[in-house]
Amino acid sequence: MRGILLPPTTPFEAQGEVDLPALCANIRRWNETGVSGYVILGSTGERVHLDERETLEVVRAARASVPRPLAFVVGVGGHGTRASIAQARRAAEEGADALLVITPHFYRAAMTPAALAAHYESVADASIVPLLLYNIPQNTGVALPADVVARLSEHENIIGIKDSSGDMVNFLELLRLQSDEFAVLTGNASLLHAALSAGASGAILAVACVAPRLAARIARAVEQERHGEARELQSKLAPLARTVTTRFGIGGLKYALDLCGYGGGAVRAPLSMPDETGRREIAQTLEACRPYEETENETKVEAEGAVT
Amino acid sequence: MRGILLPPTTPFEAQGEVDLPALCANIRRWNETGVSGYVILGSTGERVHLDERETLEVVRAARASVPRPLAFVVGVGGHGTRASIAQARRAAEEGADALLVITPHFYRAAMTPAALAAHYESVADASIVPLLLYNIPQNTGVALPADVVARLSEHENIIGIKDSSGDMVNFLELLRLQSDEFAVLTGNASLLHAALSAGASGAILAVACVAPRLAARIARAVEQERHGEARELQSKLAPLARTVTTRFGIGGLKYALDLCGYGGGAVRAPLSMPDETGRREIAQTLEACRPYEETENETKVEAEGAVT
Amino acid sequence: MRGILLPPTTPFEAQGEVDLPALCANIRRWNETGVSGYVILGSTGERVHLDERETLEVVRAARASVPRPLAFVVGVGGHGTRASIAQARRAAEEGADALLVITPHFYRAAMTPAALAAHYESVADASIVPLLLYNIPQNTGVALPADVVARLSEHENIIGIKDSSGDMVNFLELLRLQSDEFAVLTGNASLLHAALSAGASGAILAVACVAPRLAARIARAVEQERHGEARELQSKLAPLARTVTTRFGIGGLKYALDLCGYGGGAVRAPLSMPDETGRREIAQTLEACRPYEETENETKVEAEGAVT
Amino acid sequence: MRGILLPPTTPFEAQGEVDLPALCANIRRWNETGVSGYVILGSTGERVHLDERETLEVVRAARASVPRPLAFVVGVGGHGTRASIAQARRAAEEGADALLVITPHFYRAAMTPAALAAHYESVADASIVPLLLYNIPQNTGVALPADVVARLSEHENIIGIKDSSGDMVNFLELLRLQSDEFAVLTGNASLLHAALSAGASGAILAVACVAPRLAARIARAVEQERHGEARELQSKLAPLARTVTTRFGIGGLKYALDLCGYGGGAVRAPLSMPDETGRREIAQTLEACRPYEETENETKVEAEGAVT
Repeated sequence: MRGILLPPTTPFEAQGEVDLPALCANIRRWNETGVSGYVILGSTGERVHLDERETLEVVRAARASVPRPLAFVVGVGGHGTRASIAQARRAAEEGADALLVITPHFYRAAMTPAALAAHYESVADASIVPLLLYNIPQNTGVALPADVVARLSEHENIIGIKDSSGDMVNFLELLRLQSDEFAVLTGNASLLHAALSAGASGAILAVACVAPRLAARIARAVEQERHGEARELQSKLAPLARTVTTRFGIGGLKYALDLCGYGGGAVRAPLSMPDETGRREIAQTLEACRPYEETENETKVEAEGAVT
Repeated sequence: MRGILLPPTTPFEAQGEVDLPALCANIRRWNETGVSGYVILGSTGERVHLDERETLEVVRAARASVPRPLAFVVGVGGHGTRASIAQARRAAEEGADALLVITPHFYRAAMTPAALAAHYESVADASIVPLLLYNIPQNTGVALPADVVARLSEHENIIGIKDSSGDMVNFLELLRLQSDEFAVLTGNASLLHAALSAGASGAILAVACVAPRLAARIARAVEQERHGEARELQSKLAPLARTVTTRFGIGGLKYALDLCGYGGGAVRAPLSMPDETGRREIAQTLEACRPYEETENETKVEAEGAVT
Repeated sequence: MRGILLPPTTPFEAQGEVDLPALCANIRRWNETGVSGYVILGSTGERVHLDERETLEVVRAARASVPRPLAFVVGVGGHGTRASIAQARRAAEEGADALLVITPHFYRAAMTPAALAAHYESVADASIVPLLLYNIPQNTGVALPADVVARLSEHENIIGIKDSSGDMVNFLELLRLQSDEFAVLTGNASLLHAALSAGASGAILAVACVAPRLAARIARAVEQERHGEARELQSKLAPLARTVTTRFGIGGLKYALDLCGYGGGAVRAPLSMPDETGRREIAQTLEACRPYEETENETKVEAEGAVT
Repeated sequence: MRGILLPPTTPFEAQGEVDLPALCANIRRWNETGVSGYVILGSTGERVHLDERETLEVVRAARASVPRPLAFVVGVGGHGTRASIAQARRAAEEGADALLVITPHFYRAAMTPAALAAHYESVADASIVPLLLYNIPQNTGVALPADVVARLSEHENIIGIKDSSGDMVNFLELLRLQSDEFAVLTGNASLLHAALSAGASGAILAVACVAPRLAARIARAVEQERHGEARELQSKLAPLARTVTTRFGIGGLKYALDLCGYGGGAVRAPLSMPDETGRREIAQTLEACRPYEETENETKVEAEGAVT
């Protein structure tokens, strides 16, 4: 679990049906960008908008499009332990290399440290493939405490955590748990450079779906200790993250994907696509990152970047 | 939608399977307590812990146990409009008189007033039975704004709201929308007397599953302007609400049900049952309310109450 | 400590100096409205905008204008115990009947239950006049826990609490502590009827500065068990509270005072007066309450009210 | 405004009086540690616990102890603009090089972007020495929005901001405003390395009062692009920050100062000193950082550090 992993969106046709061919085409194109793998059906993948049959079809189609050297992680997890185990088993049967398991959260007040620890241990015990913990309190209202993560990091079937909280102080605490057996990944693109500089092994970033090469170059620059360049590249990624995903959400990302020649498609209600003004802002912000994504210019930009 | 409605728990056997006979027996006993109806598979019913088949079985079993004059409401609603509509249709087919539709909430930042209004309007347009809005921000992180409720209250297929927020100032604003076509119900037992005194038409209360007669007597006392008595009865209900449901949650309520001779049964993980100390506290708190629930003493207590 | 207490604003001249004659004139007029007393230099009195000399002058001028049968409470309290004691002594020397002591709050994380209890006990021990606790977490970020209030309610020099939190569930818990020796007062005008119906002994309400007779009539109606009338009167007060104080704050209240013939005057920066639109809204909302404040119509309105 | 600035505590004698000699002795010792300057009477300096006379004496004594090449910043600011200007003038007369001006915050709901901007502009216009903005929402409940900071950064008498929010995403946005005329300083020791790596010009850190050399070495290491070493040093500072200041607050810091041979002294109530267990933890955590603070070992440690 190193480098940049993409959490693909799930494209829908205008009538609202899942557009599997678009998903597969997107993945085949991303395969060439230098990313390390995928997290299918994470928050960005609108998993909560899919029924069981659709979930299965998306996982199968994606699995068939991801070549073996790349990581193939599947997002699972519900509010109950029993259902989470069932989902974990199904995803493993369909070829998941690992699972990203969201914190249960509907009965928020009951999600004590002990309850969260027991939940993850039960899922990890029952799963035939390893787990990544998934902390995203801005959506769930439940923050996975650092000491629970510490305890879970010792389970041999729990191999890491994706922290999307945006709380850097907490992230630095998690980093102290990082080891060859336990990866700490950020889910916050604004903090990509900061997280990697502090030693994080990688990132799972929605915005990287439209800027995979830029994100991968930041990771490479930090790895090779070219901090000035990394900082410069981060200053290109940050406005994109702010505009495309933070402000306009999944609808914004799908519109941006369309602009970049990927299959963005529609969102499912109650999500919505950006309005006219939003679309214009997204287009402008994308413009500044375009050079980093054009393959023919790769060498040229790489050279320029080195100069910075 | 007047008086006290109960949101039954879903009893599970020790092995975790749904215990339908226990559910039906509970309902038959509650039928005799003076409550006005039921909300099956609300938050208290662990809906989020059931799979599709179990959901269907619970609704069917409950429907068969609720006599016609009592209201039979079913809790539905997911994060997507499409799925919420599908659930609404299925519940109506199974005989729901009305639906309690939770706010979509996973993509919290996208749940703008416009998104919430559009979601509910779509579900209301598609449903053959009327809806109650369901505002429970402490679980969802999404608060339904009063002006969105105002707009939705004008939809002819939206007949009320259950507000479990505990925010009395907001509740009073909602009450201004109350009419013969739009009921405003509290979901907070600590505020039962306050809500009814302010004019609310009723309440849906988890704690009333162990104290249905006490809750119904509060409603009756307020209706008949016996405020001293209502206040006195509320002072009995409040500690029960604090201990059984606020502190120990669904596990606490199920344990209390067992103590009262109902079929409480187990919870599904990651929820848990109260520990030894918790069980003792629950037992003690229940003791003080017991006189109000003993049918043979009904007349006697009623007489005493009138004296208070 | 019963009935309606007013927390007077501190009028400033256009150049920003305290306008003592205006303050005294306001108080003399309020003396005739049926209120039970005053809290000088509460949050509404911009105490945090005054220097030591000004504070002293305001207390003296107010004291001279309040006739003995009415309560004369003075707001005191800083972030340190030492300074709070010094302020308490000075206010008592100037003739305060009691003190409203705000929670210390700058070092919020250090304001543990033990720290808050010790602070209030120190001030109560040192003060020659009794204290009211003051809980206003929306301004301070510190909520006084109910069990700390319970402990403090047993101190013979602590005679009550003003709770401005707007949290009715918490307020009901505080009410259980109410006794002849310990008053529980609400600071939330939207909850006035609810608080009094639940048994609260009184209220300290900013909005009552422009609607003292209306507020006092609500208190009287609840006391005499005319709940229909009380509810009706509350429905007149609520929009005023929402518009004048909740939305436009102290600037809104001062503008409203000017409209009612009191001396409102200016606020001190960074507070500001309402803009054109705000002023219009305030004027409209006031209009609906005007009949209740016109003394010549007192009997007439009283009669109408009884009909409602 | 570069490097590490210390916000000295204000030592109190056992009877609670300010201990000016201890303050001066502390400063003289810190003068030799490589820090760039001081912020007297910041949050750590218990400014809110001092009266006017004490405030003046502390500023004078400190000024006399700080040699000219080091920055001498004084913390000022109240809830009102008028009082903040008066404080600013007094501090400048006493020799402040610059002022750290906290956001006004008691009337939190009224602290709109426009109100905050106008407040700071008024103070900046009136002050004869330049200002640093001070954002510490965890104490004030008011967060200075990035666009307000952007506007204020253009005022020629506003030369920077101290951001203690701990919100790294926001901090990175502020960094985009950094220039030769506008410094962006972190107030969060856990984020020191991250902030400096991202380009921040410096930091104002309470914990640096007991680890000034360690903090200064982190700043130096980042400046010289020795990121491995900086990260290693940060891993020593982080537990100290967590234990001494985050958990035990000013009392914890004062106890730690005593252990290190500085004059820590007492806190003023309602703050308190750590208990037995807390004192033991603080002592243990300090132990690990001790080598970095021993001057005789400076060269040795420096050499070791380079090896890391």
